[in-house]
Amino acid sequence: MENWELLRTLAIKNSSRIVLLVIDGAGGIQIDGKTELEKAFTPNLDMVAREGVCGLMDPVFPGITPGSGPGHIALFGYDPVRYQVGRGVLGALGIGFHLERGDIAARINFATVDEKGLVTDRRAGRIPTSFNQELCRELEEKVKVEGAKIFVRTVKEHRAVLVIRGKGLSGEIKDTDPQKEGLPPLDPEPITREAEKTVSLVKEFISQAKNILSSRHPANMVLLRGFSQLPHIPSFQEIYKLNPACIAVYPMYKGVARLVGMEVLSTGETLRDEIETLKNNFDSYDFFFLHIKPTDSSGEDGDFERKVKVIEEVDSLIPEILSLNPDVLAITADHSTPSLLRSHSWHAVPVVIRAKTARVDDVDRFTELECAKGALGRFSAKYLMSLLMAHALKLSKFGA
Amino acid sequence: MENWELLRTLAIKNSSRIVLLVIDGAGGIQIDGKTELEKAFTPNLDMVAREGVCGLMDPVFPGITPGSGPGHIALFGYDPVRYQVGRGVLGALGIGFHLERGDIAARINFATVDEKGLVTDRRAGRIPTSFNQELCRELEEKVKVEGAKIFVRTVKEHRAVLVIRGKGLSGEIKDTDPQKEGLPPLDPEPITREAEKTVSLVKEFISQAKNILSSRHPANMVLLRGFSQLPHIPSFQEIYKLNPACIAVYPMYKGVARLVGMEVLSTGETLRDEIETLKNNFDSYDFFFLHIKPTDSSGEDGDFERKVKVIEEVDSLIPEILSLNPDVLAITADHSTPSLLRSHSWHAVPVVIRAKTARVDDVDRFTELECAKGALGRFSAKYLMSLLMAHALKLSKFGA
Repeated sequence: MENWELLRTLAIKNSSRIVLLVIDGAGGIQIDGKTELEKAFTPNLDMVAREGVCGLMDPVFPGITPGSGPGHIALFGYDPVRYQVGRGVLGALGIGFHLERGDIAARINFATVDEKGLVTDRRAGRIPTSFNQELCRELEEKVKVEGAKIFVRTVKEHRAVLVIRGKGLSGEIKDTDPQKEGLPPLDPEPITREAEKTVSLVKEFISQAKNILSSRHPANMVLLRGFSQLPHIPSFQEIYKLNPACIAVYPMYKGVARLVGMEVLSTGETLRDEIETLKNNFDSYDFFFLHIKPTDSSGEDGDFERKVKVIEEVDSLIPEILSLNPDVLAITADHSTPSLLRSHSWHAVPVVIRAKTARVDDVDRFTELECAKGALGRFSAKYLMSLLMAHALKLSKFGA
Repeated sequence: MENWELLRTLAIKNSSRIVLLVIDGAGGIQIDGKTELEKAFTPNLDMVAREGVCGLMDPVFPGITPGSGPGHIALFGYDPVRYQVGRGVLGALGIGFHLERGDIAARINFATVDEKGLVTDRRAGRIPTSFNQELCRELEEKVKVEGAKIFVRTVKEHRAVLVIRGKGLSGEIKDTDPQKEGLPPLDPEPITREAEKTVSLVKEFISQAKNILSSRHPANMVLLRGFSQLPHIPSFQEIYKLNPACIAVYPMYKGVARLVGMEVLSTGETLRDEIETLKNNFDSYDFFFLHIKPTDSSGEDGDFERKVKVIEEVDSLIPEILSLNPDVLAITADHSTPSLLRSHSWHAVPVVIRAKTARVDDVDRFTELECAKGALGRFSAKYLMSLLMAHALKLSKFGA
């Protein structure tokens, strides 16, 4: 039994408001003895830690480094191993494409093939994004397959997304990317019987695309991978009886939020814009997912000092969130992004829950090591939502 | 695989004795900076904490507030989500009715219906308990259904319990309580095919009850809910090879203990009576579940000071338990009942295990926050029994 199956039977609606602030990639590891959170001057985050109850969360399970998809799926209360979002779907969500139920999404690499049809460059010499955009426009305009609509959209350089919209489609299809140069592209093969019809559409797309691209060397071929459909995930409304809103700048997070039933609020590009959006909409929703991206980006750039500065900027905006007086405020991350590793990592993330119903502990800094001493202990991120619901008094008693 | 399936293959019998002291609802949250456990003067509980190893347990999973049923099912080593005890069964256990395997139990509300048969009061104006007792006696005496025996027993005010005893019955039946005034009672409907025969017996009961009660306004109807049977739970004897005894004052806890195979010892009304019962029977059993109720009751009344006093009274009796020299003494709670919330809550509960085999930590107070720093860390209550068995050296090695 999944957690949400029990939660669905217990959730009740009341007027409490929950704010979940996700500082993407906030967790780190020490450089010169300090993590980014330890180095930053964060009087407001520390005050929240002092007033709330703290802990440390594993995004998936100990040792697993999540991508943004699984990281957020877990924060939203679903088992990220059980509810996997396909790579094609994540690619489409990442560029803000509005997938509909039943759509098939796949990642495209523009590639170079020689006259024998063998792949000589899987990335077509990393063509410029503007050339990619030109190719996508042409493919989307010219490729016609019977009984389905084709979308071809640019990601960046040699990367794009294919979406096939039609009836009775299936994403159970093998990649056509041979993963090695010197080999021909693979045929798209159905993994299950239901995918046979979709495979014939994909073959038709590849054949027409190959013709159209024949004069577009080095981008004279497409390689496809990560065929997938939107997973069937029960929504926040169904499980939690919440009326949830998402405030995020990057398309990927908006896409994952939309997947679980959140309304995506339009906002600007800066942290301040996001806070303004929170303020302006605070009366209209009872759950806010507020996503902060630049901590992750600076960690991925290996820029320790910039990550510290972003954390300090986030810290300076905390009083504005507190001034709204949310019944429950949680601050955490979807995963760690240590500047030292220049990538996402498996290290557990600090979490604080501030609410009148919290059993306050004696943690007084919002850092990895201090939160590790908190009374919430160490737990799996998929339990965060039940804790937030409980602290908002939105869960009735289980059993008599 | 459930925990007990492994434990059953590892359990061995020896002469060690385990005492599990459950201080019902002991956990709290702070009022004026202190929880009830923090406020109480507890030199003996603190000594046990100092001599043992401490931790913090989630009764079900983070955020879930358990009723007494799931709370104790977890303490006894079963997954409380997998082994759910139905509301009708808990109602029957709660009044000390000795359910047999196969019995169907349901909760009764005496209710008022108008001449059109619409429910005008789901609680029949909360009739006095003495009137309820009169009605139950009459129904149990007069209602006759073919091939089954009917029991109707008072709980309190408008609440009673129905038990149907017969062959081949099923509790997979929908409630007849429409949950709203102005509607007629619902027909009892089978959820599965196997329940069809039972449904016809229930219909017969309702029809006869309605006739008998017709002159008993405002209690002129019965509404039924929570149809259920004793779940099939493997017993303590089967899993742990224990010879377990229960010492409790309230019927509900005796009922849950009986459900897992404990012998329920007769005892008096006070904590002192319970300790005397423990002393008098200490040589005859190798596992004692000792249940203390008034911590929970005072928490539910929102009476912080009374809860503190009860904790201090429990503390004063600890030396008498220690004088028996149990090989393993565990002290914990089935859930928290913070006076501030006046109800059960989801907050994790402190636990201490004192045994010669314990890896002693440096916790020296039996409070929520100090136990949170203990070497047992934070874990799910369903693992407590395997820890107790281990500390009693009653579990052999798993694998070679």
